[in-house]
Amino acid sequence: MKLLEERIRRDGVVKPGSVLKVDAFLNHQMDVALLDALGAEWARRFAGAGVSKILTIEASGIGIACMAARHFGVPVVFAKKSQSINIDGDVYTTKVQSYTHRRVYDVLVSKRFLGPADRVLILDDFLANGCALEGLLDLAAQAGASVAGVGIAVEKGFQRGGDALRARGIRVESLAIVDTMDPASGAITFRPDPAETAGGGKYPTPPEQIP
Amino acid sequence: MKLLEERIRRDGVVKPGSVLKVDAFLNHQMDVALLDALGAEWARRFAGAGVSKILTIEASGIGIACMAARHFGVPVVFAKKSQSINIDGDVYTTKVQSYTHRRVYDVLVSKRFLGPADRVLILDDFLANGCALEGLLDLAAQAGASVAGVGIAVEKGFQRGGDALRARGIRVESLAIVDTMDPASGAITFRPDPAETAGGGKYPTPPEQIP
Repeated sequence: MKLLEERIRRDGVVKPGSVLKVDAFLNHQMDVALLDALGAEWARRFAGAGVSKILTIEASGIGIACMAARHFGVPVVFAKKSQSINIDGDVYTTKVQSYTHRRVYDVLVSKRFLGPADRVLILDDFLANGCALEGLLDLAAQAGASVAGVGIAVEKGFQRGGDALRARGIRVESLAIVDTMDPASGAITFRPDPAETAGGGKYPTPPEQIP
Repeated sequence: MKLLEERIRRDGVVKPGSVLKVDAFLNHQMDVALLDALGAEWARRFAGAGVSKILTIEASGIGIACMAARHFGVPVVFAKKSQSINIDGDVYTTKVQSYTHRRVYDVLVSKRFLGPADRVLILDDFLANGCALEGLLDLAAQAGASVAGVGIAVEKGFQRGGDALRARGIRVESLAIVDTMDPASGAITFRPDPAETAGGGKYPTPPEQIP
C-alpha cells in the first residue's frame, strides 16, 4: 500500500539489529487518519470473507484493530498479556515469545468473546517472527473459530513469520513488506504488492469507469 | 451519557469488591460503534478547548483514544507500561499503581511525542482511584504540555479519584458516573449528568431550531 510505504520511508527509522522504528505514527504515537486508511484497505481486501470479529493482541494492535473494525462493522476482541483479577477464570490461554521485550507472555481471551460461530480477522501492527500471530491463531483454534485471514501493517519480509504462515495456507495481507533495510543509509526496499501491481493501483478503476 | 449508562445496565456485571466488569463492550471485547459515539461526545464537550493531542495509557485506553481522535483530528500518544528495547532512552517516566493487576508499573512516553506545544486531552476507560491519570498528568507536566482536561468512559463515583482531580481544578468529563452498585441485585445508580440534564438531552436543541 503506497500510502503506508511512503510514510515508512518518511518517518520510519532503521536501527541496527533489524529494528524498524515506526513509533512516530503506528505504535506509540498513532496517526489515526493513517490507521483509518489501513482499515479501509483491509476491508476492501477482505470484502466477502465473512469476518464477524477482529482479533488482536495488546497493546499496539488495539488502535489498528478498532479503526479497522469500523469499516467491517464488527467488534474487536484483544488478547490480554497477563492474568487480571478482572478476568474470569473461563479463558483460553497460550504463550507468546516477545523478542522486543525479551520475555514470554501468558496471553488469554475470555471464552465468552470467542467461539465456533466466529470468523475472525487477526490484525496486528508488525509481523516479524510471527510469535504473536501464532498465539492468536492458537487461541482461535482453541475457541473453534474459523480464521478469514491475517492483516498486518508492516511485515519484515526478511524474517520467517509471514512466509511460514502463507506456507500453511493462511491468507496474510501485509500492507507493507520490508524486504531489505540498511541502518547505515536508512534505505528501505519494499516487496512489490500484488494487490496493487495487479490492479494497477491501490484502488483499481471500477469497471463502469473503464473506457 | 444515556447510551453508555444503558449499555452498562444491560451488559455490565457487578461483582463483589466494587468490581464492575464492562469487558463485553469496553475493555476486552470492544463495541467500536459505542466507542465512536463516546468519541463524538467528548469532541462535543471539548469543542474549542484547543486539543492538539490525545494522551492515554495502554492497553484498554488505546481503542477509546483512537476512536475519539478521529473526531478531534489529532494524533494519539499512548504511555507504555514497561521499558522496551524499541524505545529510545529519551523518555519521560513515572510510576503507576494498578489495583487491578496488584503491582506498580513504570510508565513512559517518548520525549519526541509530548512537549510544551501540546495541549492534551487525557482519555481512559475507567477512573476509580485515579492512579493511572495521576501518572499521565505527571508525564504531561514533565513534558511542559498543557492539559485541556480528562475524558473518562466509566467513573466509579464512590472512589476518590474523580473528585480529587476536580478539586484540583482539572476538568473531568466522565460519560457515566456510577454512584452505587450492588453485587447482590446487580443494581447500579448513576450520578445525574449536568451535561445532559442542563441541556435537556445528550444533544441540546441547536439555537436555530428553538421555536
